Amino acid sequence: MTDGTMAAMRECYRIRQAPYYLETGDEVAVFEAAYAARLPVMLKGPTGCGKTRFVEHMAYRLDRPLVTVACHEDLFASDLIGRYLLKRDETVWEDGPLTRAVRMGAICYLDEVVEARKDTTVVIHPLTDNRRTLAIDKTGEVLIAHPDFVLVISYNPGYQSVLKDLKQSTRQRFIAMDFDYPAPDLETEIVSREGEIDRETAAKLVTLAGKIRNIREHGLTEGAGTRLLIYAARLIRLHVPVREACRSAVCLPLTDDERLQETLGDLIDDLF
Amino acid sequence: MTDGTMAAMRECYRIRQAPYYLETGDEVAVFEAAYAARLPVMLKGPTGCGKTRFVEHMAYRLDRPLVTVACHEDLFASDLIGRYLLKRDETVWEDGPLTRAVRMGAICYLDEVVEARKDTTVVIHPLTDNRRTLAIDKTGEVLIAHPDFVLVISYNPGYQSVLKDLKQSTRQRFIAMDFDYPAPDLETEIVSREGEIDRETAAKLVTLAGKIRNIREHGLTEGAGTRLLIYAARLIRLHVPVREACRSAVCLPLTDDERLQETLGDLIDDLF
Amino acid sequence: MTDGTMAAMRECYRIRQAPYYLETGDEVAVFEAAYAARLPVMLKGPTGCGKTRFVEHMAYRLDRPLVTVACHEDLFASDLIGRYLLKRDETVWEDGPLTRAVRMGAICYLDEVVEARKDTTVVIHPLTDNRRTLAIDKTGEVLIAHPDFVLVISYNPGYQSVLKDLKQSTRQRFIAMDFDYPAPDLETEIVSREGEIDRETAAKLVTLAGKIRNIREHGLTEGAGTRLLIYAARLIRLHVPVREACRSAVCLPLTDDERLQETLGDLIDDLF
Amino acid sequence: MTDGTMAAMRECYRIRQAPYYLETGDEVAVFEAAYAARLPVMLKGPTGCGKTRFVEHMAYRLDRPLVTVACHEDLFASDLIGRYLLKRDETVWEDGPLTRAVRMGAICYLDEVVEARKDTTVVIHPLTDNRRTLAIDKTGEVLIAHPDFVLVISYNPGYQSVLKDLKQSTRQRFIAMDFDYPAPDLETEIVSREGEIDRETAAKLVTLAGKIRNIREHGLTEGAGTRLLIYAARLIRLHVPVREACRSAVCLPLTDDERLQETLGDLIDDLF
Amino acid sequence: MTDGTMAAMRECYRIRQAPYYLETGDEVAVFEAAYAARLPVMLKGPTGCGKTRFVEHMAYRLDRPLVTVACHEDLFASDLIGRYLLKRDETVWEDGPLTRAVRMGAICYLDEVVEARKDTTVVIHPLTDNRRTLAIDKTGEVLIAHPDFVLVISYNPGYQSVLKDLKQSTRQRFIAMDFDYPAPDLETEIVSREGEIDRETAAKLVTLAGKIRNIREHGLTEGAGTRLLIYAARLIRLHVPVREACRSAVCLPLTDDERLQETLGDLIDDLF
Amino acid sequence: MTDGTMAAMRECYRIRQAPYYLETGDEVAVFEAAYAARLPVMLKGPTGCGKTRFVEHMAYRLDRPLVTVACHEDLFASDLIGRYLLKRDETVWEDGPLTRAVRMGAICYLDEVVEARKDTTVVIHPLTDNRRTLAIDKTGEVLIAHPDFVLVISYNPGYQSVLKDLKQSTRQRFIAMDFDYPAPDLETEIVSREGEIDRETAAKLVTLAGKIRNIREHGLTEGAGTRLLIYAARLIRLHVPVREACRSAVCLPLTDDERLQETLGDLIDDLF
Repeated sequence: MTDGTMAAMRECYRIRQAPYYLETGDEVAVFEAAYAARLPVMLKGPTGCGKTRFVEHMAYRLDRPLVTVACHEDLFASDLIGRYLLKRDETVWEDGPLTRAVRMGAICYLDEVVEARKDTTVVIHPLTDNRRTLAIDKTGEVLIAHPDFVLVISYNPGYQSVLKDLKQSTRQRFIAMDFDYPAPDLETEIVSREGEIDRETAAKLVTLAGKIRNIREHGLTEGAGTRLLIYAARLIRLHVPVREACRSAVCLPLTDDERLQETLGDLIDDLF
Repeated sequence: MTDGTMAAMRECYRIRQAPYYLETGDEVAVFEAAYAARLPVMLKGPTGCGKTRFVEHMAYRLDRPLVTVACHEDLFASDLIGRYLLKRDETVWEDGPLTRAVRMGAICYLDEVVEARKDTTVVIHPLTDNRRTLAIDKTGEVLIAHPDFVLVISYNPGYQSVLKDLKQSTRQRFIAMDFDYPAPDLETEIVSREGEIDRETAAKLVTLAGKIRNIREHGLTEGAGTRLLIYAARLIRLHVPVREACRSAVCLPLTDDERLQETLGDLIDDLF
Repeated sequence: MTDGTMAAMRECYRIRQAPYYLETGDEVAVFEAAYAARLPVMLKGPTGCGKTRFVEHMAYRLDRPLVTVACHEDLFASDLIGRYLLKRDETVWEDGPLTRAVRMGAICYLDEVVEARKDTTVVIHPLTDNRRTLAIDKTGEVLIAHPDFVLVISYNPGYQSVLKDLKQSTRQRFIAMDFDYPAPDLETEIVSREGEIDRETAAKLVTLAGKIRNIREHGLTEGAGTRLLIYAARLIRLHVPVREACRSAVCLPLTDDERLQETLGDLIDDLF
Repeated sequence: MTDGTMAAMRECYRIRQAPYYLETGDEVAVFEAAYAARLPVMLKGPTGCGKTRFVEHMAYRLDRPLVTVACHEDLFASDLIGRYLLKRDETVWEDGPLTRAVRMGAICYLDEVVEARKDTTVVIHPLTDNRRTLAIDKTGEVLIAHPDFVLVISYNPGYQSVLKDLKQSTRQRFIAMDFDYPAPDLETEIVSREGEIDRETAAKLVTLAGKIRNIREHGLTEGAGTRLLIYAARLIRLHVPVREACRSAVCLPLTDDERLQETLGDLIDDLF
Repeated sequence: MTDGTMAAMRECYRIRQAPYYLETGDEVAVFEAAYAARLPVMLKGPTGCGKTRFVEHMAYRLDRPLVTVACHEDLFASDLIGRYLLKRDETVWEDGPLTRAVRMGAICYLDEVVEARKDTTVVIHPLTDNRRTLAIDKTGEVLIAHPDFVLVISYNPGYQSVLKDLKQSTRQRFIAMDFDYPAPDLETEIVSREGEIDRETAAKLVTLAGKIRNIREHGLTEGAGTRLLIYAARLIRLHVPVREACRSAVCLPLTDDERLQETLGDLIDDLF
Repeated sequence: MTDGTMAAMRECYRIRQAPYYLETGDEVAVFEAAYAARLPVMLKGPTGCGKTRFVEHMAYRLDRPLVTVACHEDLFASDLIGRYLLKRDETVWEDGPLTRAVRMGAICYLDEVVEARKDTTVVIHPLTDNRRTLAIDKTGEVLIAHPDFVLVISYNPGYQSVLKDLKQSTRQRFIAMDFDYPAPDLETEIVSREGEIDRETAAKLVTLAGKIRNIREHGLTEGAGTRLLIYAARLIRLHVPVREACRSAVCLPLTDDERLQETLGDLIDDLF
């Protein structure tokens, strides 16, 4: 790969605009130190609390390209590494997302990594210890990671089963940072800005979310993430009545339990 | 793809005739707002309550092509995205239904999405957040969705098992709308019109369905959908005796439990 | 496909001789109405009660070709739709049985459909609602069903497990008809005619079957179907002693339980 | 296939020498009647009681070629039907054992058929009702069975689990015959002749087997078959001490349970 | 295959040096009789008691080539029979180990046969009854076994689960011989000779093993085999302190249970 | 393979710099004796206690190349042995990591071997007894191991399930050595040196780890390995506050249990 195509690829994965992100603690400083020491990082936290946005923010801040992969239970190591493609009767090697990140010195973000097949272990381990290598079996190549490469993984401790736990030998290769929903003030700011509505309504939506997140009844495994609040804000802005907007965007997506929906409905009625 | 072939394909998936649909609440307004904001939508409700018809109605109303996929437990992401076909000794790429929808700006409707294999996550996530992209691994292409594209999914909360629940990180990417059977007046209107029988008989069929839907005994996991009432109406119109038509079209399809069939039979006898 | 080859194929699947069938209720009228309205039909009933024969009878009566597929747990949608075959170094597309039925306007009978793999859903659904289409993924073709096509499925409520139940969203696409063993007079007539023995012996065989069908002890999940009575008749006609013929053709096939065999043996001894 | 090659193939599967078989009841007459009526036959009985030998005997007696397939849990329908083989860069179709039997009018014997994969249903059903056809999907051919073809299956009721039971819709397509170990006199005759030892020792071995077959203790799911007695006889003839021969050939193969082995050892000590 | 290449292959599998083996009973005589009668043999016994060595010894003694296959749960019949290989763009058939043994008249030893996939049944059965044939499906060849061929299998009754038991219809095709650890004198001789240490130390190691084999506590499913004693001897000879050698070579490999390790440690302390 | 390319490959896998390793007992002497006798070695111990570093150390000390493979549940024998690759339309054989090690006389280290698929048995067994061979099925080659080759495996007794236990017939082929965390003095030395911080802070980190390793409460299956202490040290050196560094690098990676995190937090507060 020439320097030119490498630069073009980096450009491709560069975050061009500053992602909107409000710091909630010293997570930026810890991540910067981890990145400076090239330590792999594990982000823990519930759905919709801003893990993905944080990684985008850090990639922008550190001026590094970002390669994101949403993991799932049918994702094999080969999906990360690459494959041979047939292009006009020729077989051409095509780097997978991880390989690209390793070559160009990107931050590679494996979202919900425990969901992936276990053969991903074989690529994670040598990239997260002093070897910093990636073996591409199918071409016989052994890549030494670009000095700027670092691996970031996320996972949600709330709904892991025993079967889907990370092995200790994998966990103990990462610095961990835990995330939670932003503080009310911050979240109001975010919802108002991204949902394009006034701060007052945004604050009410955040209050609603706060109450929902405190419910730990049967069936409600997780609270509403910030994204759902932004969805509600957008519906309101398009003239959907506020209660209906909250119901559609915040309550109904969370659970199918009718009793819980009633409870959630009461919360809406109390607020609006 | 030329503009011409794109237009032809859109034509292919356009709903030509206004689907018969009677509004039951403000679901049309909410969907229109969601579509205006390009928010992904999740339709929840029992079998046969009109979710599919509603999507057809909205596609017609918004004048968008509609691509429908019935999901099942052997449906892989690759079935949605596309594959290479052998045509006269040449390998030709053939877009899958989702890819087609993404290219032409259609509404893509994944019916009973929880049934599909979990690797569909990888296509759903980047299409339902600010990225709005679809990566076609096999060709190396990354599609940016047409501005008019939006994803709609349906699922039936009534018969989901723990194993087949949508992950929170997927759920919290959708506005949700819940559906139920139409109100008696509306349903009578529908059955009379689609089954081509008089309103009086139609009303009786709807009354029967209402009674059945109130039974929550062992084994009857769901009530009879509107389609079954229309089936009964059509049999009656073709001179099948009304009790027999109800039994064949409404009761027998619902359950194999003999006791329940007796109860259902009694309901018919009471009405006709 | 030319009109000529289509006609030839129809001829291939036509039932040439009137199948021997004795009506037991108004099942013929209901089926005719369902077919006139092109409603899909589900036949429910125990093994050997005549469901398959009934479909053959109706196909003959309606003068439609009949395509029958015995479903099993390794039957995939692709087995129904078709595949590419290698013929003298050429790949040739070969329609599967369902595709053939859809093209020529046949009755397609999926026997014991719950046994099949779940991806058959994807072919059943669009063929049983107002779309009436069959998508052939591998060739990219979307077939609109011939106006005379209709889908018929059968299944046996007696031995379905929870895992093998039809989904409500599939069930509620069919008119259902339930079948049981023919009444004694009818069955005697059938056994005498098909087994080529005198009515008196046939009547005794039917009495034996009636007694067996009333046993609902541990292990005897189903009674003896009419086919087994015909088998017994044929053995008797070939001079196998009557008790031995009953044991071999009627009792031994039903169960491996020794105690039950004794009970069945006593029933034979009482009768002959 | 020319008549000549067909004749050659039949010759291949013909039983040339009369298999040694001693009749124990009227099983020969029943089988002959079933064959005359071309009824499919199911042989039930414990391991080593002579089912396979009986089929060989009948094939010889009826002068029909015999094709035997030992079924197992990785046997698919395609293993029975045939496949394309690569021979010197040419793909050549090769009939599987069942297809060969269907073409030449052989008796096809599927030994322990419940062990096979369930897609074998699709080949068994149309060959065992009035259709008598075999569809070869891969070539698109539909074979009508030779008039002399008949299907025979065996299975052992002793060690079937619920999972491995034959479906009623399959069972009720066969005449059944049950087999047990031969009577002592007959078995002595067999062991003496096949094991090439004197009748007295043979009789003792049979007595031993009889005692073992009466034990129904924990772990001894089946008694010793006749083959093991013949093995013992052959070892004795080659000067292995009689007790040791019995232990090696009759007791040790049956079970790994040490207590049971002691019991079996006591039986040997009592007799020899 | 020419006689020359056959002879070369036999040479390849011939045991050239007399394997060191000390007879413990009349196992040699029984095996010789079984081989003379060409009866298949099953060797039962715990890990490391000398079954493999015994087969090597008998192969040497009978001057027959020996083909050994270690079975495992991913071993399919095709791994035994052979496959087509691509060699410089040509497909060449390559016999598997069993096929080679059948052709050249070797003893074929399937070690821990219950571990293999169940389709191995299809190759074992016709090779162990009067047919003595091996069908090579992929080439269409049916091999008649060389007159000197015989099949030997081993298995360890100690750790078989219900799922991994040999079927009775397979078991009852073999003469069985059971093995146990050698008597102390013999084992001392073996350890001293193979481990190259003095008889006194060897005797102590054997005493240790004897004590360990008598422990039947929770977790210790098997005792230490002779090989581990030889390992200990070799470490001692290379100046590892005797207690440490015993711990590393005899105790630690056996179990991960800490309490059991303490018990084993006490046994070492008592002896050395 | 020429001597030159072999030498180049050995160079590739040679450990160039002395890995930092502090001896904790006589593990070096035992390993040297085992290597001198070419006995296979099994390393047992918890995550992060230095097993991998020890192997690197020994490979450096013995001046042998080291080939390391991280095993996982989708690792098949073929991944170890090699495969055919398509390179510019040519199929070229590519040795897998084990094959390379066997050819060049390397130490081959299979990390967490129990995780791998069971067909690895077939490669492990003949390489760990007197045969010392590796059969490469796909090329038909049988490699005799280089005299300097030896196999080393590791596994962690702490989190093995019954399903993932090594079979006794595999275990009893290895000398075993058990590892634990280094003694406090040694570990302080290591952390100070590798984490580049003062000994006092390093000692405190080691004290923290010691306390954590003594907790055996619900959920904490393993203590913190030395690597995590080094991570903490590096963060501290980059000015992350010490408590935060400990939390991110030592506590959060270990467990998702909130109560345990509180306990771990208290331990930090007590120390710093």
